[in-house]
Amino acid sequence: MSEPQVIREIGPLRQRLDAVRMRQQSIALVPTMGALHAGHAELLRVARENADYVVASIFVNPLQFDRTEDLDSYPRTLDADLRVCAAHGVDLVFAPSAAEFYPVEPLTFVESPVLSRHLCGAFRPGHFRGMATVVLKLFNVTQPHLACFGEKDAQQLAIIRRMVTDFNLPLEILPVATVREADGLALSSRNKHLSPEERAVAPVLARALKEARASIDAGETDCSMLKAAATKAFDAEPLVRVEYFEIVDPETLSPLDRVADAALLAGAIWLGRTRLIDNVTWRSSKAIT
Amino acid sequence: MSEPQVIREIGPLRQRLDAVRMRQQSIALVPTMGALHAGHAELLRVARENADYVVASIFVNPLQFDRTEDLDSYPRTLDADLRVCAAHGVDLVFAPSAAEFYPVEPLTFVESPVLSRHLCGAFRPGHFRGMATVVLKLFNVTQPHLACFGEKDAQQLAIIRRMVTDFNLPLEILPVATVREADGLALSSRNKHLSPEERAVAPVLARALKEARASIDAGETDCSMLKAAATKAFDAEPLVRVEYFEIVDPETLSPLDRVADAALLAGAIWLGRTRLIDNVTWRSSKAIT
Repeated sequence: MSEPQVIREIGPLRQRLDAVRMRQQSIALVPTMGALHAGHAELLRVARENADYVVASIFVNPLQFDRTEDLDSYPRTLDADLRVCAAHGVDLVFAPSAAEFYPVEPLTFVESPVLSRHLCGAFRPGHFRGMATVVLKLFNVTQPHLACFGEKDAQQLAIIRRMVTDFNLPLEILPVATVREADGLALSSRNKHLSPEERAVAPVLARALKEARASIDAGETDCSMLKAAATKAFDAEPLVRVEYFEIVDPETLSPLDRVADAALLAGAIWLGRTRLIDNVTWRSSKAIT
Repeated sequence: MSEPQVIREIGPLRQRLDAVRMRQQSIALVPTMGALHAGHAELLRVARENADYVVASIFVNPLQFDRTEDLDSYPRTLDADLRVCAAHGVDLVFAPSAAEFYPVEPLTFVESPVLSRHLCGAFRPGHFRGMATVVLKLFNVTQPHLACFGEKDAQQLAIIRRMVTDFNLPLEILPVATVREADGLALSSRNKHLSPEERAVAPVLARALKEARASIDAGETDCSMLKAAATKAFDAEPLVRVEYFEIVDPETLSPLDRVADAALLAGAIWLGRTRLIDNVTWRSSKAIT
């Protein structure tokens, strides 16, 4: 378990990766905002399995935070993160400062108006613009052959995949399954903000999603019925405030009235000051995937 | 003078250019919409001078036309264009179909809200979004070391340069001076739509710009005075309808009240159904450039 090299500037990063490309080695990028947990570890494992050289980026991107308090309170744990990277065979950690990554006021952005309209996008104006813009920048400074993204951030994943298609980016996106606690709670850097009482209630989101998926499996196709059942589950938990619970087309992220071949079921809830998101995908066994 | 190869699909283009990169040759891209004239020839000449391998793209991009009639009437002259490319040592012409370049409905766009607010952007909603998006796509399929853009399209050039900075694109933009007819009219594919009467009047735009620049040289810094003089020149020509005549910061493209270190002077006029644009830059001899 050797320490990964940490590079903080774009010039040296490009130089190092040019040398890797000259050796005909393939490069995988795992973009993160640090505070690495077992979900990130799974991204790193998939990257390690699929490329010769693994780059993890750690950058808490100011452009994608809509609320200052969330940016300020976002956990920063670089030493622990480097140990996680070392344990998972990361070759290089790119951890630029905000001044290095945004040397001038950004005036150019990636916009995905259709894909940002619903789900989290409806509640976090500018978030996906900031996210997609920073990911494009990371792609351009790293020029990876592949990049790994977690399925937990389903809207992010859909936007990135479509960006790669629409912009003809010469790389492959590997989606990585959500890692969960034993009680179903999806791993998130924000979970550590939960009080013990909130933590006890938190799995209700994953449970509601799984129950909705089971109902579809059992033949329910009416999305209003599926959503009503979820609302009932959330209403039973006084600590929970629901932001949204939606059933959408997995590609366009447009809300569905009826489930046909495939559906993305996604929700966001608040527990105190902590916002949790989760999702599951349902596909007809008859659908060609 | 050998014929350049014409490639119409992205896969074969990438393959060909990968081979060029393997030979350690530098690649220049000249993006065009065809209808090549002496202004484009100058772009090709600069590209040829600065790179080992020159790619010209010819693609009339539907995404950047705000009016259907302009898209439909935009001149398409591929055979003549290929002769111009051959005469200027172009190695490869990339001429995709719309279906090849937009195989699915584009849902991801490049937006430059600040830089698109004024000048042409105020009159052509969506134009610069479409332009910047297609240029980014062309950069991504070509991965050139440098790309040439004409100074005639000043707002386009400013947006592309800032996109390269903001998105960390690994390439250099070479601006190329505007080529003009003997009477000052800037070359444009749209000039061929002018009637003889309109053509006779057309140089008024270049003249007004040059006169405004001369006034600044002579000490006038008040932009309202400079604009009033230009308005007077246009008012003397009954065939001319002015769209805008602005004096802006060359980087942010924000209108100036007073000229200080540098200014971009830009205008757009209509002659019948033809829209002409032109610009000049003024820099203080004291300014460090």
